[in-house]
Amino acid sequence: MNIQRVVRDLVATSRAPTLHSKSLRVVEDESGDLEVAVDPVGCRPGDFVITISTSAARHATGDYSITTDLTIGGIIDHWSEDRWRD
Amino acid sequence: MNIQRVVRDLVATSRAPTLHSKSLRVVEDESGDLEVAVDPVGCRPGDFVITISTSAARHATGDYSITTDLTIGGIIDHWSEDRWRD
Amino acid sequence: MNIQRVVRDLVATSRAPTLHSKSLRVVEDESGDLEVAVDPVGCRPGDFVITISTSAARHATGDYSITTDLTIGGIIDHWSEDRWRD
Amino acid sequence: MNIQRVVRDLVATSRAPTLHSKSLRVVEDESGDLEVAVDPVGCRPGDFVITISTSAARHATGDYSITTDLTIGGIIDHWSEDRWRD
Amino acid sequence: MNIQRVVRDLVATSRAPTLHSKSLRVVEDESGDLEVAVDPVGCRPGDFVITISTSAARHATGDYSITTDLTIGGIIDHWSEDRWRD
Repeated sequence: MNIQRVVRDLVATSRAPTLHSKSLRVVEDESGDLEVAVDPVGCRPGDFVITISTSAARHATGDYSITTDLTIGGIIDHWSEDRWRD
Repeated sequence: MNIQRVVRDLVATSRAPTLHSKSLRVVEDESGDLEVAVDPVGCRPGDFVITISTSAARHATGDYSITTDLTIGGIIDHWSEDRWRD
Repeated sequence: MNIQRVVRDLVATSRAPTLHSKSLRVVEDESGDLEVAVDPVGCRPGDFVITISTSAARHATGDYSITTDLTIGGIIDHWSEDRWRD
Repeated sequence: MNIQRVVRDLVATSRAPTLHSKSLRVVEDESGDLEVAVDPVGCRPGDFVITISTSAARHATGDYSITTDLTIGGIIDHWSEDRWRD
Repeated sequence: MNIQRVVRDLVATSRAPTLHSKSLRVVEDESGDLEVAVDPVGCRPGDFVITISTSAARHATGDYSITTDLTIGGIIDHWSEDRWRD
């Protein structure tokens, strides 16, 4: 799993039905590269989170039929930009 | 999931039967690297899209027997080259 | 899926039984990095092809029991080295 | 599988229920890049470990319903920073 | 699949039960980066091999319950360091 930071929400009105109406967040890694994750936890911009990829991402949404390859698995209790680069 | 931009259609007459006659699009990421995705949404060149990889890509086509590892999951409502590099 | 070019055949007499006697091709990407793919299509060196990775690669061989993580999915009709770098 | 070193524990109180209360460790690779792994083995900071990714990570926890994409598979008996860079 | 070279055996006495007592090899790619693979073929250090990743790696061991993400699929008949860099 990776450590990423929530940047903002992402709106995609025209989407594959298999994504349902799940909340999508733009997340960034330490290098500032962006990805999009399904958020079943309820995060806010700035939260440092654990993200789950591959087929586990579908299960982590709580509904295996959601076709995501990246899902937020939890909010990290104590993390900071410093620790990221440590 | 990744944020990519649709570049053009891709024609492959001689293909594995498991790809059926699905529409294929060349997509590029922020660095200009190219990949090929199945498009169940109906995109046009220039659209910024969310792409789904790994086994979720098969499910996202709406037909699990389509053997793709990358499928367009939706068109992003508000995105621009600036935001990509933000 | 990725866009790769067929370089040559690959011979591996001593192999896991789960690869059966499938034809193997060395393929290269835009950077010249090499990988090995199962070829159910019948390609020749120099062909630009679409390659399918992850679990879809097994299905794309037409026989799910073939343990490959990369399979050639089709030959691209119109492609050239220029377009790769476009 | 990759060779990584255990850095510290990771606390995430607010997490997806599919991660249960599994122990999470921050691990680093040779370049110092950080990832998060489920630890069914019982490692201490400084241990060099083998990490298992993709869908095998779920099985390696001993409980397929744990939605991880990275699990510690074992502690390496003889390894050192020198060997890593060898 | 990737082309890698066997470097040495790897000993991990304390391991997840799902790895059983399978033989593990350290393999390197063209850049010298190290990974760990299950070896069902019987390789020796110096052998150039094809390695299989993702879920196909489990099947390639001959026992789907082995939780590996990398398995040696065969020994390449004719390969050399020159060809790697060709």
